[in-house]
Amino acid sequence: MRINLNADLGESFGAYRIGHDALLLQVVTSANLACGFHGGDPLVMTQTVELARGAGVSIGAHPGFPDLQGFGRRVMHLSPPELRGILLYQIGALDGIARATGSRVTHVKPHGALNNLACEQAELANILAQAVKDYGRDLILLAPARSRLAEAGERLGLPVALEVFSDRAYTDAGQLLPRSHPQALLPDSGACVAQVLRMLEAQAIVSIHGRRLPTPFQSICVHGDHAQAAETAGQIRQALEARGCRLVALPELFA
Amino acid sequence: MRINLNADLGESFGAYRIGHDALLLQVVTSANLACGFHGGDPLVMTQTVELARGAGVSIGAHPGFPDLQGFGRRVMHLSPPELRGILLYQIGALDGIARATGSRVTHVKPHGALNNLACEQAELANILAQAVKDYGRDLILLAPARSRLAEAGERLGLPVALEVFSDRAYTDAGQLLPRSHPQALLPDSGACVAQVLRMLEAQAIVSIHGRRLPTPFQSICVHGDHAQAAETAGQIRQALEARGCRLVALPELFA
Amino acid sequence: MRINLNADLGESFGAYRIGHDALLLQVVTSANLACGFHGGDPLVMTQTVELARGAGVSIGAHPGFPDLQGFGRRVMHLSPPELRGILLYQIGALDGIARATGSRVTHVKPHGALNNLACEQAELANILAQAVKDYGRDLILLAPARSRLAEAGERLGLPVALEVFSDRAYTDAGQLLPRSHPQALLPDSGACVAQVLRMLEAQAIVSIHGRRLPTPFQSICVHGDHAQAAETAGQIRQALEARGCRLVALPELFA
Amino acid sequence: MRINLNADLGESFGAYRIGHDALLLQVVTSANLACGFHGGDPLVMTQTVELARGAGVSIGAHPGFPDLQGFGRRVMHLSPPELRGILLYQIGALDGIARATGSRVTHVKPHGALNNLACEQAELANILAQAVKDYGRDLILLAPARSRLAEAGERLGLPVALEVFSDRAYTDAGQLLPRSHPQALLPDSGACVAQVLRMLEAQAIVSIHGRRLPTPFQSICVHGDHAQAAETAGQIRQALEARGCRLVALPELFA
Repeated sequence: MRINLNADLGESFGAYRIGHDALLLQVVTSANLACGFHGGDPLVMTQTVELARGAGVSIGAHPGFPDLQGFGRRVMHLSPPELRGILLYQIGALDGIARATGSRVTHVKPHGALNNLACEQAELANILAQAVKDYGRDLILLAPARSRLAEAGERLGLPVALEVFSDRAYTDAGQLLPRSHPQALLPDSGACVAQVLRMLEAQAIVSIHGRRLPTPFQSICVHGDHAQAAETAGQIRQALEARGCRLVALPELFA
Repeated sequence: MRINLNADLGESFGAYRIGHDALLLQVVTSANLACGFHGGDPLVMTQTVELARGAGVSIGAHPGFPDLQGFGRRVMHLSPPELRGILLYQIGALDGIARATGSRVTHVKPHGALNNLACEQAELANILAQAVKDYGRDLILLAPARSRLAEAGERLGLPVALEVFSDRAYTDAGQLLPRSHPQALLPDSGACVAQVLRMLEAQAIVSIHGRRLPTPFQSICVHGDHAQAAETAGQIRQALEARGCRLVALPELFA
Repeated sequence: MRINLNADLGESFGAYRIGHDALLLQVVTSANLACGFHGGDPLVMTQTVELARGAGVSIGAHPGFPDLQGFGRRVMHLSPPELRGILLYQIGALDGIARATGSRVTHVKPHGALNNLACEQAELANILAQAVKDYGRDLILLAPARSRLAEAGERLGLPVALEVFSDRAYTDAGQLLPRSHPQALLPDSGACVAQVLRMLEAQAIVSIHGRRLPTPFQSICVHGDHAQAAETAGQIRQALEARGCRLVALPELFA
Repeated sequence: MRINLNADLGESFGAYRIGHDALLLQVVTSANLACGFHGGDPLVMTQTVELARGAGVSIGAHPGFPDLQGFGRRVMHLSPPELRGILLYQIGALDGIARATGSRVTHVKPHGALNNLACEQAELANILAQAVKDYGRDLILLAPARSRLAEAGERLGLPVALEVFSDRAYTDAGQLLPRSHPQALLPDSGACVAQVLRMLEAQAIVSIHGRRLPTPFQSICVHGDHAQAAETAGQIRQALEARGCRLVALPELFA
C-alpha cells in the first residue's frame, strides 16, 4: 500500500526562521511550500526548492491570504476574481523558481484560513479548484478528506489526493478543532502515531470522541511548526513502514 | 522593415489607477507588465493579461525591486541570490496568471532602478540574464541598446531585443538622463516622434546634444505614465508605418 | 449654528495619486488622514499635514485595516489586541508627523471596513473607542450618527462628533447602502446638497425611501475620491452658509 | 559611575519570533524597539512596551528602512523628505502605543543599514538628528561613539548618549567590521566582557588590532539576536557592577 506524507515547509521569511525544514525533508515525501504571501520569500523559496529536490521530495504550492503579519491565519474577505488572482500568482511564482532549478510544482494545497474556508464553503472551494485546473499542468490538489475543497476538485476532474492530519484533533463532524481550542493539537508524538494508525485501520477519520467518519485517504499531514515535528514525522513514517506501507511522493500516486 | 513598439503597463495597484492601459494596448505591439513588487497586483495583472490578449499584444514580465512605496525607482542593495529570487518569482507569477488565460509570458524587461543598475553593472546584468535563461522557455530579453544588460543577454545566447526610448533624452554616453534632470522627459508628442525618426534614420541613439551612438535596435519604448502617452504612441506608430515599418510583437522578431 | 465639514484625505501612496486633496482643503474644515495601512505613506502624510495646516483645517487619524491592496475595504478578522495595536500605531504615526510640523492630531475616524464593522458590532466599537481614549489627549471621536461606534465613545466619555454622509444613500435602518449597491452613491452635486439640507432641516438621517431617523449631528462627510468631490463639497458649504451655519474645525465644537 | 546597557528588542513579527526579549529585559536598562518597518508589528510592540515597563527598562524607537524582508539591513536610497517621514512615522507609532500603556518613548536609535549610513554620511545623520529634534519631547539620541550621527545630534543640541558595542569587532578607524566579515561578531561571552572592560578602562574604542580611539561613552550595546545574548548581557552587567558602575536607564543619564 502506497501512502504520502506531507508537511508545510519554507515558511521562513527574511531573517525570520520558522519550522524544521532540513529535518522534515528527510522524512516526508511531499512538501507544501509557502509562496510569499503568508510566509516564504523568493530566497527562502529558492533554498527550499533546492533542499526538496536534493531530498527527492515533491513540491507543491501552499498559497495563502496576503497577510504576512497574520501568517495567513486571519480570515480576509476577497472577491472571487481577487481569490483567483492570488492563487495563480502564488502557484506561478513558486513554479517559476522551481523551473529554474530543474524542478516543478506538482501539487497545490491552500494554507491556513484560506484552506479552512475552502473546506467549508463550496463557492470558494470551486474558485480554488478551478484556478488549479486552469493553471493547467496536471497539478494535483491536496485537500482534506471529506472537505468541500476535495469535492470541488473531484467535480472538476482534478487529480485529488485526500489528506488526514496526524497531529490535530477532529470534531465529530470531521472538521479540525480550531487552533484556539485547548485540545486542538495532539499532545505528543505517541498520540500522533496512534491517531494515524487508528485512521489507517479504520479507513476513516476518527474524531476526538472516537466517532468514525469513513473516507479513503492517500496522504498524511504533519505540521512543520511544532518543536517535535521532525521527530513525530519520523515515528509516523516508521510506524507506517512497519505496517507495510510504502511512502511515495504525490505524483507517484497518480502515475 | 519590422519593428516593435513596447510600453510598461499594468502598474495600477488595488484602488490606485495609473497609466492608460486600455488606450495604449490599441497602439503598442508588446506590453511589459508589472508583477506585484513595484506595481501591479494579482487582479490588475489578470485584467491586463486579458486586455493584452484581446488586443493581440504580446506580454512580458516587468520585474522590479520589492518597493511599492518607491515604485521600484529607489535603489536597493540586494545580494545575487536575492536578485535571482525576485526575478524568477515575478516572472513566474505573471506567467502563472497568463497561462490560466491561455496566454504566455514571452519576454522580460526589468523595471526602474533594477533596469538602470543592470544597464551599468555587468555583474547585475549577468544575474538578470541568467535568471531569464534559467526560466527556460525561450524568453526574449528586452534590453536598452548599448547596455550591459543587452551584452549579458547576448553573451548567454538569449534572444535579445534592443530598445530605444521615444520620450527620454539621452546623454552623450548613450544613457538616459536621470528623471531628476529637467530635460529628462521630452516635452511633447512632436519631440518624441522626431527623436524616433532621427534614431531610425541614423540607426543610432542620438543624444540630447546630437551625438550619434550607432546601434541596431528592434523595439521602441513609449512610457505609459505620461498624460499624453497614448496619443504620443499613436503618432509614433503612424510615423513608423508611414515610413514603411511593420509593427510586430516581440516573438515575431525571432520567429 | 456651528457645523463641521470633513473629508478623507491623504490617501495617495508613493507614485499613486488618489483624491483631490488640495481642492478639498480649501472647502472642508476637518480632514481625516490615511495613516499608511490602507493608504497614505510617511511622505504623503507629511505633505498632507502641511497642506492642512496651511489651510487651517484640523486633522484626524483615519486608521484602517493593514490591507493596501484592498484599500482597507476588505473585512479582516483581527483579535482585540491586534485591533488595539493597529489603532494606536496609526494614530501615533500620524501624530508623530504632525507634531514635527507644529500641528497635532485632534480627532480619529476609522476607515472603510473597519469603520463599517465598528458601526455594527458593539465589541469592536468598544475596542476602538477605548484605544482612542487611552491615547489620552482629548482626542475627538468622529463617528456616524446612530452607530455603535458613537455609542461606545459616549459611554466611555469621549468627545464624540456625530457625522452624516452627504453623498451616500441610507437604508431605512439608518445604515449606508453598501458600495456594491447601484444607488449607494448619490448621482450628482445637486442630490448631495439636497440630502444635506433635508437632514439638516429634519435633524434626522433621511433614508433613500424618505424615512426619518432622528439624530443630532455635528459634522457632514464628503468623500474625497469622487471626481466631483471638491465641487460638491463647495456647493454644500455654500448651501450651509446660506442657511446661517458657521463651518468650524472639530476642536471648535468642543472648545 | 553611571552607565547604560541597551539592546535591540521587539523585533519579532506576527508568528515569527526572534530574539530573547524576556530574558534581556531582566538585564538591560534601556531597550530599542523595532517599529514595524524592518521588524516588530503593532501587537509585538504593545507586548514589548508592557514587558519593558514591568521591568523598569526605558524604551526607545529603533526605526529602520521599510524592508521587512531584508530586516532593515539592505541599503535603500531614499530622498531626504522620505527619510524624515519614515523616522517621524516610526517614532510616533511606537510612542502612540507607549502612551496608551502609561509609558513614553525616551530615546531614538536607528537600526541596521539606516544606522550604518548615518554613522558615515553627515547629510543623512543631520536628517535623522533633525527629525528626532523636531519630534520635540527631549528625546535622547543614542548614537555610536565617534560617529557622524553623534556629531549631528550634538551640533543640534540634542541630548546624545554615546554607545560602544560589546559584541562586535571594530576596525582601526573605529567602525564596526561589517557583518559579512568572519570576525565581525566576537566569539563568546568572555570575549564580550573583556572588550567592554578594555574599552571602559581605556575610555576608548579598542579596535580588533588593539588600536585605541579615545572617546567618552555612556552606553553599552548588547545585540539581542545572538543565542547567548541574555547570558552575555548578564555577565557584562555583573562585570560592570563589580567595578562599581551603576546601571541606569538612559533618561537618568540626563536627569
